[in-house]
Amino acid sequence: MTTTAKPSSRDRLLDAAAELIYRQGVGTGIDALCKAAGVSKRSMYQLFDGKDDVLAAALARQEPRLTALLVPPPGKPAAPRDRILYVFQRLEEAAASPDYRGCPFLAAQVELKDPGHPASAVAARGKQALTDFFQAEAERAGVAEPGLLARRLAIVYDGASARAGIRSEVLDGLAVSTAALLLDAAGLAAGDAGS
Amino acid sequence: MTTTAKPSSRDRLLDAAAELIYRQGVGTGIDALCKAAGVSKRSMYQLFDGKDDVLAAALARQEPRLTALLVPPPGKPAAPRDRILYVFQRLEEAAASPDYRGCPFLAAQVELKDPGHPASAVAARGKQALTDFFQAEAERAGVAEPGLLARRLAIVYDGASARAGIRSEVLDGLAVSTAALLLDAAGLAAGDAGS
Repeated sequence: MTTTAKPSSRDRLLDAAAELIYRQGVGTGIDALCKAAGVSKRSMYQLFDGKDDVLAAALARQEPRLTALLVPPPGKPAAPRDRILYVFQRLEEAAASPDYRGCPFLAAQVELKDPGHPASAVAARGKQALTDFFQAEAERAGVAEPGLLARRLAIVYDGASARAGIRSEVLDGLAVSTAALLLDAAGLAAGDAGS
Repeated sequence: MTTTAKPSSRDRLLDAAAELIYRQGVGTGIDALCKAAGVSKRSMYQLFDGKDDVLAAALARQEPRLTALLVPPPGKPAAPRDRILYVFQRLEEAAASPDYRGCPFLAAQVELKDPGHPASAVAARGKQALTDFFQAEAERAGVAEPGLLARRLAIVYDGASARAGIRSEVLDGLAVSTAALLLDAAGLAAGDAGS
């Protein structure tokens, strides 16, 4: 492409929805979403079946950005331990922003209280991708129970991001150092280059 | 007292509000809260300033029950490590219920997205009491950094309860064993009787 395409109504609506839902919750009304996006309700209903569909699509549209933010590029860093800790370092950087409200996927799932909601399903897939990344790196490092280590890391990630998001915690190294202790306990010590 | 007092309108309203908010979120309307409690809106407004006040009072009323559920009675068990793990054992039992939706305090804070909301403040105090319990036991055991250990345990508690509440995780020992690893790493090993 030689030019940057102007965002479509669909993309504008989803970006505005993602932003507003992150700040105000999934209870944000259709009118507010359309107003923030600068699209008419008629346009919205031509693009989406309704608010549940907008919620799900807005979360799905965020996933590539969140993955790029949190998950290291191939080989940089190279060692499984460093690659796992990279995620927690990025979390701590994001959580230091005054705009941070925790993980948007976890928040949507907590707010919707319905694992069967289409937006909950999108959020669950996004979270599972992170757990799968932890597990793949743990497997590469040859730890005894990579799935178990990945689940431990996932609860640290979600607990740290939630507590930072509600302003109960200023992480300041807490997420990284707690993850590092769990890596130590799993035998994935500093300096291991991975297999 | 020789008789059990009939619950007041205030208590009925707060219990119904707590139950409904836990299942449906803080966005539950005043009409639904009054209907579930069997009190008129007029009565509600005689008792409370408005919905924010009901939310805060409903969370505050839950705190003694949650403390009794999660925090061990004095001396039973006696050792700091066992007393800390008791909390995670109770969490795992609670999370095994199909009705479990995670910690009501954390959920309210995530949903309200406003640490200055009166209900967020009540919830934050409830959560802080648990972190304070962890810290007091860690101090009693003589660990080097009791405040840091307590913060690690708090993120494991919140991550485990949130992931169980949204059905991303069936804990099945995960919260207890992860907390135990962090106690090990802090030098609070099994068998330590505390000072």
